[in-house]
Amino acid sequence: MSKPTIPKGTRDFLPHQFAKREYIFNTIRDIFVRYGYSGIETPAMETLTTLTGKYGEEGDKLLFKILNNGDYLSKADTRALETRDTHKLTPSISKRGLRYDLTVPLARFVVMHLNDLQLPFKRYAIQPVWRADRPQKGRYQEFYQCDVDVVGSDSLMYEAELIQIFDQVYDQLNIPVEMLLNNRKILAGIAETYGIKDQNFGAFAIIIDKLDKISEEDVMLQLTSLDLSIDSSRQLLKTLQITNLEELYPVLAQSALGKKGIGELQEVLDYLRLTPLHNKLSINLTLARGLSYYTGCIIEVKATSVQIGSIGGGGRYDDLTGVFGMKGVSGVGISLGAARIYDVMEELNLFQDLQIGQTDVIILSLDEASHKYAFQLGGQLRASQVSVDIYPDLAKFKKQMKYAGRGSYRYALIIGEEERASGLMTMKNLTDGSQLKVDLQEVAAFLNQQVDESK
Amino acid sequence: MSKPTIPKGTRDFLPHQFAKREYIFNTIRDIFVRYGYSGIETPAMETLTTLTGKYGEEGDKLLFKILNNGDYLSKADTRALETRDTHKLTPSISKRGLRYDLTVPLARFVVMHLNDLQLPFKRYAIQPVWRADRPQKGRYQEFYQCDVDVVGSDSLMYEAELIQIFDQVYDQLNIPVEMLLNNRKILAGIAETYGIKDQNFGAFAIIIDKLDKISEEDVMLQLTSLDLSIDSSRQLLKTLQITNLEELYPVLAQSALGKKGIGELQEVLDYLRLTPLHNKLSINLTLARGLSYYTGCIIEVKATSVQIGSIGGGGRYDDLTGVFGMKGVSGVGISLGAARIYDVMEELNLFQDLQIGQTDVIILSLDEASHKYAFQLGGQLRASQVSVDIYPDLAKFKKQMKYAGRGSYRYALIIGEEERASGLMTMKNLTDGSQLKVDLQEVAAFLNQQVDESK
Repeated sequence: MSKPTIPKGTRDFLPHQFAKREYIFNTIRDIFVRYGYSGIETPAMETLTTLTGKYGEEGDKLLFKILNNGDYLSKADTRALETRDTHKLTPSISKRGLRYDLTVPLARFVVMHLNDLQLPFKRYAIQPVWRADRPQKGRYQEFYQCDVDVVGSDSLMYEAELIQIFDQVYDQLNIPVEMLLNNRKILAGIAETYGIKDQNFGAFAIIIDKLDKISEEDVMLQLTSLDLSIDSSRQLLKTLQITNLEELYPVLAQSALGKKGIGELQEVLDYLRLTPLHNKLSINLTLARGLSYYTGCIIEVKATSVQIGSIGGGGRYDDLTGVFGMKGVSGVGISLGAARIYDVMEELNLFQDLQIGQTDVIILSLDEASHKYAFQLGGQLRASQVSVDIYPDLAKFKKQMKYAGRGSYRYALIIGEEERASGLMTMKNLTDGSQLKVDLQEVAAFLNQQVDESK
Repeated sequence: MSKPTIPKGTRDFLPHQFAKREYIFNTIRDIFVRYGYSGIETPAMETLTTLTGKYGEEGDKLLFKILNNGDYLSKADTRALETRDTHKLTPSISKRGLRYDLTVPLARFVVMHLNDLQLPFKRYAIQPVWRADRPQKGRYQEFYQCDVDVVGSDSLMYEAELIQIFDQVYDQLNIPVEMLLNNRKILAGIAETYGIKDQNFGAFAIIIDKLDKISEEDVMLQLTSLDLSIDSSRQLLKTLQITNLEELYPVLAQSALGKKGIGELQEVLDYLRLTPLHNKLSINLTLARGLSYYTGCIIEVKATSVQIGSIGGGGRYDDLTGVFGMKGVSGVGISLGAARIYDVMEELNLFQDLQIGQTDVIILSLDEASHKYAFQLGGQLRASQVSVDIYPDLAKFKKQMKYAGRGSYRYALIIGEEERASGLMTMKNLTDGSQLKVDLQEVAAFLNQQVDESK
């Protein structure tokens, strides 16, 4: 058989990669939990009817669909088979798809389990999602989303809380970021004020979302396609530069919705004034976020020291569960991009000092009796919470040391006849190569102390 | 739209279920790590050629296959379409499948990444797998496996180590178990001794595996189908009752393979005599384990206080990667059944005292100023590692208390004008209903202490 491969757009995580990613997940999870969010999990497979139509036409194409089991052709749409109509055939041979994000499954979950939940329902989820996107550098067909959402409350305290969570996570991970805040109602107010028709609001949001990618001139040009004069376009772009809500108020004086949006932002900022943030938070009216379901505050996080685009975002959506027949349930949530966070941390060398994924000690033995001794000692150390590996046989010492030196261990503990006789263990620090003797009784305490100090 | 559903055989994990399962995973993972195993992760999707043919004909049928994206019919096998031959059509419209277990992906991983690994390679994986089995009570189409394996060493120390891991995990989880140990070489030796032909060995293993399900008489009857006389069958069954290796030795005196198996078990037991086990370990020659790839020691774990069958098992397979073209790489590993462990713990009421998944405190407020105060206090407590939820608005106190009492919190901290003036916080223990006053400065220490004590 030829050498095996994995599907395009997927990847394996080697031990050091896995450990780094776990470090990110654990940091994020700990903060979610500290803010009172509960974990839930939904299955990887959802029925296709749950997924289809929720992500636009493009999204539907990117869903991974699962073939029905058994003799699926016997129940296939005969006409679609005869006309080779893939699109029509699919629903008759595939009932399930892989989840595309964590938001639609959350909405489905809330509707199905409403009797078991009390609102507001605060949940986090850290799970992979799958999209049949064309693979490219940094873009995979399987990737993790880390989401935290509140369902069933209009309180703007949650917007403030979610901003605190962003702030804490990136502070904890040592990634300097700037957090940008806006409100869809303000954007709607601006559109209203400048006479952009309701049906053009989506297009308007998409255009201004491009402000950090294309030139202001080009954005202006695109705005005129929405029946805006050059002058109004210029004026509108000036409005978008406003970062002070006091200044914005008179501009939107005629828009009730716009003023409501300003009020919401003000209330969120009032909350946040009560506790200090580690990172800069600024009002940015050019932030639009493409997703059409946002209706209130929107937020986005950018790493300030690396060119990588957004590494987190979210907002409020007033009708989370309407699509599943349950109206009037508001949601607000944020999502952290674990893969990009990983890349930023690599680029900033932030993993280096963390000694992630290392086993505390590997025990090497010079003779048969020492190997037995090692097995015994290993058991004792593990009972004292030390992580221990034992070289499994009496290979040449050089070979054992090579294995020990592959970067997976903090210390090597070397046992020979002398060590057994004296009870003084030889400990080699595998990071700096230094060596010292530690009394048998002290080994666990010594190693636990070293690990604590490295944290 | 009608109420949404999830696919047959899959399930959602509600917060309390998720928290319990995480508790099991964390306990298992901590022990894996303490024994020096590294986590890896492979993608949910593998290419179908990697999966097909590895699990027998039945297994192939249970693979979930993913439809190729785009216009898959344009590349479909025309002849298979015309003759409605599902079996022949599938490879032409599906290139990927969901992983069925964690062992085949491990073998594929080792072959692909050999240059980045040093042998012996000790890895753990805790990931879901998917099988299109007919759903029934306790059997799902998506479930987690917790696997730990060593690749690339023949040392029997690892057999001993894996038994220690079983022992530790179940001890830590408070599940009383018995561990059964056997060796495939001994079974082969017994087959040889009683004149069972090589090509019948698989059938032989399957028959004796039934000894705990069907009567001894029926097993004897089935053995005669392998050209064994009634007398030999009776004799063979008597041999299988032997639990003492000394006693077995003369029986297998003529089988080199059988004696090798005895020697291997003896060496494993020699290791284990060096450190005490918490649970009973016994030699059980009727243990066969169906999977054909085992070649050495095999082990199985049974809960002793609950009727549920095996809750863990594993063994040595001498040719892990041969199927991917890499010969001579031995593996040994065990797998823990998380779903069954969960069920056993529920049945034994073992989750009850763990206070799993609870937030330390929820802060309730009686007036606007207190709500602001709560938001501020929440920030401070979280900075001291306390997990905090804050009721998001000024709902009636009864409503707030109802929310607090839903079982997700240990304490409610109630703030009104009086509390703000005195700095003495009212803390309600939500488990026993008792109430006390705690000085503002002491709240974090108080809560951290309560949590520590409950562990």
